[in-house]
Amino acid sequence: METFFSFLEKRVDDCSSLLCIGLDPHVSDLPEPTAKAARDFCLNLVKQTAPYAAAFKPNAAFFEFFGPEGWTALKQVIEAVDAESRRLGSLIPVILDAKRGDIASTAEAYAMSAFKHLGAHAITLNPYLGKDSIDPFLGFPEKGAFLLCKTSNPGASDLQDLVVTSVGATIASSLYVYVAGLAQTWNTRNNIGLVVGATHPEALVRVRSAAPDLWFLSPGIGAQGGDLETALKTGLRKDGKGMLINISRSIARAKNPGLAAAELRDEILNIKRDLHPPDK
Amino acid sequence: METFFSFLEKRVDDCSSLLCIGLDPHVSDLPEPTAKAARDFCLNLVKQTAPYAAAFKPNAAFFEFFGPEGWTALKQVIEAVDAESRRLGSLIPVILDAKRGDIASTAEAYAMSAFKHLGAHAITLNPYLGKDSIDPFLGFPEKGAFLLCKTSNPGASDLQDLVVTSVGATIASSLYVYVAGLAQTWNTRNNIGLVVGATHPEALVRVRSAAPDLWFLSPGIGAQGGDLETALKTGLRKDGKGMLINISRSIARAKNPGLAAAELRDEILNIKRDLHPPDK
Repeated sequence: METFFSFLEKRVDDCSSLLCIGLDPHVSDLPEPTAKAARDFCLNLVKQTAPYAAAFKPNAAFFEFFGPEGWTALKQVIEAVDAESRRLGSLIPVILDAKRGDIASTAEAYAMSAFKHLGAHAITLNPYLGKDSIDPFLGFPEKGAFLLCKTSNPGASDLQDLVVTSVGATIASSLYVYVAGLAQTWNTRNNIGLVVGATHPEALVRVRSAAPDLWFLSPGIGAQGGDLETALKTGLRKDGKGMLINISRSIARAKNPGLAAAELRDEILNIKRDLHPPDK
Repeated sequence: METFFSFLEKRVDDCSSLLCIGLDPHVSDLPEPTAKAARDFCLNLVKQTAPYAAAFKPNAAFFEFFGPEGWTALKQVIEAVDAESRRLGSLIPVILDAKRGDIASTAEAYAMSAFKHLGAHAITLNPYLGKDSIDPFLGFPEKGAFLLCKTSNPGASDLQDLVVTSVGATIASSLYVYVAGLAQTWNTRNNIGLVVGATHPEALVRVRSAAPDLWFLSPGIGAQGGDLETALKTGLRKDGKGMLINISRSIARAKNPGLAAAELRDEILNIKRDLHPPDK
């Protein structure tokens, strides 16, 4: 059966890219503070960068900011990615960066919103409420869920680095490593990935060890200070895949976003080839 | 200076109520699956129950479910609470149950959406990303933030019950108790509360001990199985306040929601009076 990650792997092969392009219409980057300007900002990015995008990741906050018109814009942006997919003959997945998490009956409404009404292919979720808050999303067999594991921000250490033991257990680990282990266990239907910030290479190593099979969504390269080569070296799976490098501002604020995306795609490809030379 | 919690305490005094009324327009409770029906469902609840409401708590998911029209409905519902507040001459705070949590630059957009555009007075937040994900919300001096601490759902135990030690520390506690302690420390401007499910009386005891001053928002009475008297006995502050009992389905699905709310208000008041007799 097709799953989100089988679609994603096909797209990664089609465009030889591990680049996830963030669609974050910060109001300060727009010519005017309107939902239409946010939409046009994203439509331009999608059009210019689609050939190099393994995935697109719109962040819900920047659309929610504009209220009802923002939600209309978000849907139009996702539709524009679908149109580019058809034009290129290769489905480009859309990961809705929403970081939702609520009790099951409420999570069902969020899942319907993201997957059915907006048409996103995957979503980011916060694991703090536990498995039953994730399950409603896993009920969509062709959709994916990336659980927050180790985030790219400075405050990530406040909770995620705490040393935890489960009740009765003796083996301790960081909370984020524990979450990675849970995700690896919960991933019985090939529809769970992890958000692991590229700002923490030592975390990438530990999470890769705890979750050898899972796809990572890794923000933090560029504006947040993460190093691309180190991130790929520490986070890639043995098959040279398993990691989406998310870039938002470095592409969106480039003079020529298409060129910036092409260069980043190639830079990733070159580093990856050095690390995992293709079979002869 | 006025803060969210000074507004809330005034409202609690004005209506002698600790009842927070959940506005959760589950699509299965509506006569038709439309944003308009969701709005009308909530407007009716607000109108019937406002005199007994210490606060209202709309959950964003059930509005997001309807896309752009849902966001319009959510704003209209919050405006309707404001209108009731003016009519009653007593501000009824609106707590937006959104459980958001993102890196600071993104959290700013969520804060603007909730506080400025929608006009909510407080919001629920997920603490997994740490302090810098909370700070943008705390920057609004008259608004409040309830951090998820121990949630009412079964999966809450997956992460929240883990035994944690911070790096270098020797004292162990449950993650949720640790979060309560952080919140107590972070609450330098009287604008942080905690979400503590009424389904876990032992957790209410521990959290009250870790955070003696903070307001709790406690869901889980009724449909989720929590017991009202036990919850109040374990969660109230020494001054007989500090706890909002959230009820959603038991009121929304009652034949006469106004009567159901009045009865619950009185039931809480009676239990509270037994526990904390007023000074003679």
